[in-house]
Amino acid sequence: MPGAARDQTMLRRANELTVLAVLRDGTPRVMRDIADQTGLSWRTASVVTESLEGHGWLAGTEADAGDKRLGRPARRYRFRAEAGHVAGIDIGAHAICVYLADLAGTIVGMHRVRVSPGEPAADRLAAAEATVQAALDAAQLGNADVWAAAVGTTGIVGLDGVVTKSAVLPGWTGVDLGGRMGALLGRPVTVANDSNLAVLAEHWRGHRADTMIYLLVGVRLGTGLVIRGQLHRGAAGAAGEIGEIGEIGWSDAAQRLAAAAPGHLADLDGAARHVFAAARHQDPAAVAAVDRFATDIARGLTAMVLTIDPDVVVLGGGFAYAADLLMPRIDQRLGETCPHSPRLATSRLGDEAVGLGAVRLALDTVEQRITGLSSGTPLTPAAISASA
Amino acid sequence: MPGAARDQTMLRRANELTVLAVLRDGTPRVMRDIADQTGLSWRTASVVTESLEGHGWLAGTEADAGDKRLGRPARRYRFRAEAGHVAGIDIGAHAICVYLADLAGTIVGMHRVRVSPGEPAADRLAAAEATVQAALDAAQLGNADVWAAAVGTTGIVGLDGVVTKSAVLPGWTGVDLGGRMGALLGRPVTVANDSNLAVLAEHWRGHRADTMIYLLVGVRLGTGLVIRGQLHRGAAGAAGEIGEIGEIGWSDAAQRLAAAAPGHLADLDGAARHVFAAARHQDPAAVAAVDRFATDIARGLTAMVLTIDPDVVVLGGGFAYAADLLMPRIDQRLGETCPHSPRLATSRLGDEAVGLGAVRLALDTVEQRITGLSSGTPLTPAAISASA
Repeated sequence: MPGAARDQTMLRRANELTVLAVLRDGTPRVMRDIADQTGLSWRTASVVTESLEGHGWLAGTEADAGDKRLGRPARRYRFRAEAGHVAGIDIGAHAICVYLADLAGTIVGMHRVRVSPGEPAADRLAAAEATVQAALDAAQLGNADVWAAAVGTTGIVGLDGVVTKSAVLPGWTGVDLGGRMGALLGRPVTVANDSNLAVLAEHWRGHRADTMIYLLVGVRLGTGLVIRGQLHRGAAGAAGEIGEIGEIGWSDAAQRLAAAAPGHLADLDGAARHVFAAARHQDPAAVAAVDRFATDIARGLTAMVLTIDPDVVVLGGGFAYAADLLMPRIDQRLGETCPHSPRLATSRLGDEAVGLGAVRLALDTVEQRITGLSSGTPLTPAAISASA
Repeated sequence: MPGAARDQTMLRRANELTVLAVLRDGTPRVMRDIADQTGLSWRTASVVTESLEGHGWLAGTEADAGDKRLGRPARRYRFRAEAGHVAGIDIGAHAICVYLADLAGTIVGMHRVRVSPGEPAADRLAAAEATVQAALDAAQLGNADVWAAAVGTTGIVGLDGVVTKSAVLPGWTGVDLGGRMGALLGRPVTVANDSNLAVLAEHWRGHRADTMIYLLVGVRLGTGLVIRGQLHRGAAGAAGEIGEIGEIGWSDAAQRLAAAAPGHLADLDGAARHVFAAARHQDPAAVAAVDRFATDIARGLTAMVLTIDPDVVVLGGGFAYAADLLMPRIDQRLGETCPHSPRLATSRLGDEAVGLGAVRLALDTVEQRITGLSSGTPLTPAAISASA
């Protein structure tokens, strides 16, 4: 390409991305506002906006009568979030949940099936595939409509999408989850640990702190990190695995908590609920068990807080309903050691955190493709869909 | 500003930054190479390059005869790294060291004075001021030539430049180092913990891993983190302070190592040197002391590695000469617990690490000013110098 033509192409791409960036907040705008907010001239903004409309990124509508000035209604342009979709897949011990979202992150479909914690790996995989298909069918979407997908699951997950280590799900260690889901959807699929996705979701739709630790508190203890606004998975996807230090006592902390329940209920969730309730009524044994549980959590959390000094620690997971009991105790323990204690907060997303985090990770993949597309390729929805 | 004129201004600034970015690697280039590497047309590249030369960012020189083609030597343009300077100041227990560098990071002056660890804070501050002045005088630079400066010191340092906690230097806790050095140089000065700056220097000029932990091993143990290419100081400058956990044993690890020396030498550095030497000759008590020291180090390091899963851990500080004894032991301990063990490496920068890291941090401040300058302000060296 000769120099001047190349300048034009680069400039055009930069202008297209600028207009898209302004309109992606979802607010429809008239041309004068697009020009103002992009800093482009009216003429340049018009050419770029009309081209984006032609490619299917934007939809133009005449403004309603109330906005009419000088007799002629001004045309408004909105981002077509429906131009593409992403899937967020949460494969857990008790349930598989698939979220479908448009490019604005609005959930357009959700499908959940219950599975048994003891389900063999092959059956769990087959159930996940069936759930994805059911979600697509219900939303009347095909595989080709899904531009990117991400999967969250329990255990340590390598950056290549293979489960490195799972202490919970039978046969799960070594499963190539990225490969399997990628084959189903016909494009690369990102896989991450459930706590990693939960922290991403909290950063997106919950507590928007720059640097935060998500603490999954339940039958298992786990953590995920957002550092300077980005999910931090580490060199091999093993960030946040402080529980690997045996002395910290995370592997059996929930068991020790549950042991304070009368008759040692086999169901850990039920036993823990009993202990938390008894502690609220000042039962001495239950209060002691909750104290010990909080101390166990704080032991690992203190090491993580001293390492990265986050703004916020968000407590989520199956025992989040007991945050009122746990947080003051954890806060006190942190304060005893840390020169700077982070703010403690409860998750705002409940059991949707992992699936929403997977949606966010998939949207990030789409963003990277949009901004990373070489300027020689036309910026069309089809080009982004195909650039996987 | 009307729309079209504003488009022109934004575009011009973008083009100026593109040309500067290409030439800042220090290689002089002819116009055809500048156009090729920026992707700009020959005509646009010429206009921008000549404007940058006029403002003093670039110097043009005729190519030497060997490069002559078609009879007329092509003019080459180089980045004028001498257009501005930065200062990196290391205020330690035993020495104060000031580095002056040009905009390419080339050290153009260095001045070091010895101080006593017991020196009162006021005397240490006065010595630091005198050292900065001596370095400037020797390099024939005035305060106005220093566009940005950074200071490294021992202890926890708040993001506001005040020393939050220093266990080593008398009277150092509470000192407003940023305010004091800022008053001397007439512009804001960034202050950080010494290990923070050492890791930044390693990332810049030593081991260039994306995510790394620097482990300061000496009479004190400390750490600094680079996460995804950037220094990570944390919400209150307290990142990397794992040694605050008393059970980890970092506060007196060097004392316990030194206690294995005969006669319990009062000089910890000398005693440690003796123990390391004896361990090399398989003295059982010395080997046991080195084992224990490595175990102490690994206890804290394991928690940090499990938190951020870095690519590399770099061992530096006063005992770095014993890395051959310490690294295999630390590596083994990490391997026992961590699902993914980072690569261990020895610092390449020795006792220059803190000062060079301060230079890098000051250069980062200049970079931010250059790219952050609003497009209404002319991109001149004077504008960058004044934008502090």
